[in-house]
Amino acid sequence: MIGRPGDDVDEGPATRDTTREEAEMRAGKKATMADVAERAGVSRQTVSNVLNTPAKVLPDTRARVEAVIAELGYQLNSAARQLRTQRSFVVGMCVPPAAGGISGQVLDRFLHALTAKAQESGLRVMLFTAADDSAQIDQYGRLLSTKSVDGFVLTDSHPDDARVVWLDEHHVPFVSFGRPWASDGDTERPAASRHAWVDVDGRAGARDVTERLMAAGHKRIVFLGWPLGSGVGDDRYAGYAAAMDAAGLDAVVVRATEGVSEGAGAAAQALDDPEVTALVAVSDALALGALSAAREMALTAPERPQVAVTGFDNSPVAAAVDLTSVDQRTEEVASAAIDLLLPQLAPGAQVPDRTARPAAMHDADRHVLIQPRLVERASSRTDR
Amino acid sequence: MIGRPGDDVDEGPATRDTTREEAEMRAGKKATMADVAERAGVSRQTVSNVLNTPAKVLPDTRARVEAVIAELGYQLNSAARQLRTQRSFVVGMCVPPAAGGISGQVLDRFLHALTAKAQESGLRVMLFTAADDSAQIDQYGRLLSTKSVDGFVLTDSHPDDARVVWLDEHHVPFVSFGRPWASDGDTERPAASRHAWVDVDGRAGARDVTERLMAAGHKRIVFLGWPLGSGVGDDRYAGYAAAMDAAGLDAVVVRATEGVSEGAGAAAQALDDPEVTALVAVSDALALGALSAAREMALTAPERPQVAVTGFDNSPVAAAVDLTSVDQRTEEVASAAIDLLLPQLAPGAQVPDRTARPAAMHDADRHVLIQPRLVERASSRTDR
Repeated sequence: MIGRPGDDVDEGPATRDTTREEAEMRAGKKATMADVAERAGVSRQTVSNVLNTPAKVLPDTRARVEAVIAELGYQLNSAARQLRTQRSFVVGMCVPPAAGGISGQVLDRFLHALTAKAQESGLRVMLFTAADDSAQIDQYGRLLSTKSVDGFVLTDSHPDDARVVWLDEHHVPFVSFGRPWASDGDTERPAASRHAWVDVDGRAGARDVTERLMAAGHKRIVFLGWPLGSGVGDDRYAGYAAAMDAAGLDAVVVRATEGVSEGAGAAAQALDDPEVTALVAVSDALALGALSAAREMALTAPERPQVAVTGFDNSPVAAAVDLTSVDQRTEEVASAAIDLLLPQLAPGAQVPDRTARPAAMHDADRHVLIQPRLVERASSRTDR
Repeated sequence: MIGRPGDDVDEGPATRDTTREEAEMRAGKKATMADVAERAGVSRQTVSNVLNTPAKVLPDTRARVEAVIAELGYQLNSAARQLRTQRSFVVGMCVPPAAGGISGQVLDRFLHALTAKAQESGLRVMLFTAADDSAQIDQYGRLLSTKSVDGFVLTDSHPDDARVVWLDEHHVPFVSFGRPWASDGDTERPAASRHAWVDVDGRAGARDVTERLMAAGHKRIVFLGWPLGSGVGDDRYAGYAAAMDAAGLDAVVVRATEGVSEGAGAAAQALDDPEVTALVAVSDALALGALSAAREMALTAPERPQVAVTGFDNSPVAAAVDLTSVDQRTEEVASAAIDLLLPQLAPGAQVPDRTARPAAMHDADRHVLIQPRLVERASSRTDR
């Protein structure tokens, strides 16, 4: 557990603390900051910067200082460090200027839960906005240089994410909601990254819902997906395809960009095949469109069996229209995100170096995959 | 425009600045902080506290110092003050731990817009959570004592709001999304409060949508409302009732607690009257219920005319199911909120005293009522 903001004490100019800390370290026969500075050929302030504000230090210098620190076994007195450092006990998160319709509600739910979980651990959440990754990185720099935040929570991860590269290079604590997807679209093998992330196992969620439909007797089940190339969408499709394959059934997919009317169009196309009795949609928005296409079909072709429809995200609209959906369990995601961030922010923690040397934690400890929860409602009960 | 966080300069201990500031003031022949302290019989630190951290000063003392300040015409050197004060350039906003379903989406949309508007003005938004008003006030104290925020954005205003009283008493800058409703339920006369607020004119929105239904030929229009006693709900009802009255039609209301199935039950009750052809719902959730009741009726009583349904909030679900709704224009609300907050936070601004003396701004300048926007969709077109 880390200190709470209210515990902060203003200890005056930094030099005074450094002296006291050095005295304490000499008493304990440990290597001092001065020893590290001398061996690395830098000032003590630079050593302090490497430990507390690594973004200020040139990469070469930082690497040299870190090597000496490792060599001399220099250890910080964590209490003294906590007094000296100006930690903000705040984590930053970027939100788009406008809320994102039905899909965006997952991130809003996550944000609420994150605020609550952070607060339980003595942290606050600060919001900012940015038009793109480059603008977001610009905001990282501003927020760090003003000591407004200690780290970040990233969302909307994507292949070749420049934000992750920047944060890694600057040794900034962060956790991502969303795993790093490989740029080759291979969802089996996430990109080689060792940063902390938490994600929801969309593949398992899609497999579960497909198996549930099979158990209810459906055989011709069509996946209503996004265009190829989104890690999240491709992963969900893979779960559906695995379930179909295991049952010896053919996987069939129709694709649409995110949106209710887009979903209606693609679903109508899928329903041209008179054998189709169930639609597994990659999102609640596409599922809503599928619901209206299914209703339309029920009116125009009353002789055909009722079509089951399922969505993904369990947004408020799903509950409102009785749509079966896969819940992302945003509270568990938020809880895991804070758990992954806290060790990086703790006063005694080494600033994690994810690029230059073995990590303090094993990869498995920094990657959490939350199992989603199927919420069954009327839309998948064809006896409705 | 206020300074940006990056412009902050650490000027060392406060005593040094005070001395410099006094020298500057003496050169300009103005009353000094020492003059104010002497006349009020307090220390210079107390004068400084009254100006910079009024929450630290007992009300009586504060009133005495403020009277002397007014008497001597003491004016702060704003640049010196900006250097001396530890402003955070952050505003705090409380969000519930879990997002609030369909209705809660208005606040999420507001939060996104607030983040963007704040950032344009050099401010950040910090989130916190609290179970009730008392816990929220506790958080105000923590956030202010750690200088984590300069002020607050309140939501969910209600009669006899203890949060407003606390913030007023402690002279904390804040703005409320939501006007202060009178505790006697009189929506014509908001509670006597002079704090800054921005709200959406729900009465005008409900009147507009009712008039639009009348123009389309509807005469028996029922209001689907919340239980009496919510300022927001009563105000929307008043707009509907005014439109009905002006047209010489009888206002009829059925009430339900917020929720889709609750809305369906109340709407079904309203539709027992065979003359009813339109339902004006106080929220999108109740409207969704009304839509399903209207569909049910169309199946069981196909001889009856199609029922028009309208909602309120223009949530994503309204767009998804083609529900006519009243949009709260959260971007304009956020923009007005920041505009109302900025003068209170500006380095040269007097800390507003809303209880003890005439306000610097007229009330009308601190109360903004945003006109909502009717979004017409298929649910109110009975030729659909």
